[in-house]
Amino acid sequence: MQKKEHVSMSVIRRLPRYYRFLSELNRNGETRTSSKELSERMGLTASQIRQDFNCFGEFGQQGYGYHIPQLCIEIEKILGIDTKHPCILIGAGNLGRTLAGHMDFHALGFELIGVFDGNEALVGQNIRSHKILNYRNIQDFIRARQPEMAILCIPRAAADTIVRELYSFGVKTYWNFSHYDISMDYPDVVVENVHLNDSMMILSYKLSVTETAE
Amino acid sequence: MQKKEHVSMSVIRRLPRYYRFLSELNRNGETRTSSKELSERMGLTASQIRQDFNCFGEFGQQGYGYHIPQLCIEIEKILGIDTKHPCILIGAGNLGRTLAGHMDFHALGFELIGVFDGNEALVGQNIRSHKILNYRNIQDFIRARQPEMAILCIPRAAADTIVRELYSFGVKTYWNFSHYDISMDYPDVVVENVHLNDSMMILSYKLSVTETAE
Repeated sequence: MQKKEHVSMSVIRRLPRYYRFLSELNRNGETRTSSKELSERMGLTASQIRQDFNCFGEFGQQGYGYHIPQLCIEIEKILGIDTKHPCILIGAGNLGRTLAGHMDFHALGFELIGVFDGNEALVGQNIRSHKILNYRNIQDFIRARQPEMAILCIPRAAADTIVRELYSFGVKTYWNFSHYDISMDYPDVVVENVHLNDSMMILSYKLSVTETAE
Repeated sequence: MQKKEHVSMSVIRRLPRYYRFLSELNRNGETRTSSKELSERMGLTASQIRQDFNCFGEFGQQGYGYHIPQLCIEIEKILGIDTKHPCILIGAGNLGRTLAGHMDFHALGFELIGVFDGNEALVGQNIRSHKILNYRNIQDFIRARQPEMAILCIPRAAADTIVRELYSFGVKTYWNFSHYDISMDYPDVVVENVHLNDSMMILSYKLSVTETAE
């Protein structure tokens, strides 16, 4: 199965949703599906689905459709979630605890190898199997364990200092929950932002527009 | 200031980020900015910024630039965050507690008027000023208080039953953290999804691509 070059991010961003649907079918023991069936379940056109899957090579067979377990494995490979990138989490407040305690890192391509906080009152407490470590020792930890990604559950005010440090220690990939615009200062980093405030404002917009229309 | 019809969602989705930058300038006491200055701070082209702002009417003045406090107020109006839509939160587990305890609802267009859980062990506990209410009584609460939006911090397995109930009681807008695809079953609802798993898989993809390229 050969990847084509330059698959657009809009196609990539649809893959987790395909994966969610296909994994559910897979868990239910189904082995075959078609672009038509998927389109009905997912609210996309069949031709959109065929186009998306074609970006990554020839998945389907005429008259047979798609083999669900194989398609799941291929999407796992494309998304890179069949590997386990070591990662750390910075900021063991409520959000950090929620993520460290509940995300299924292994299923999502990562392994959480350390949780850090600067607040001495939190250091030593446990989240799932992780003892919260002192942020003061982050440099030694990074040198020894070489995490590839850092999850930032820290306030905007702390974020630029912390990113400057992590970046200088070699961490170049971030899952960013702070409102700091990392890629403005570090154009070479890989970032995925989760801006909950932005999302809620967009919902406010959608709601306002609906009310005006009624 | 007149809104143009049919502003694209891609423009709308950039507004929270503009708002974040402009609010920071506003808090620092700055009163004027230009599309050129904003473009340098935000990594967008000046013409993109002018185009975006023009969708909503004539904000800027030639040779003067933009008046920051006025621009903030206009964006608040466009996003509808100058109103306070009453909302409820369903699911007072870790994620629900984090959101109820830390989001600045008022600044984002909402007022949280009730937190619900079906787990009797949680009912009666407090999150910030909210006593957790029993989900069993949700219908009476909705009839009396008429929330316009529900935040869903519930597992996929519970989500379709809960949405069926909330929808039948008149709630048509959702901030959805579950992995249930609400709009497939209810095409008339307004939904903003936050799929943390999807976001992490996309990060895994970006990281894998970077490593392959090196």
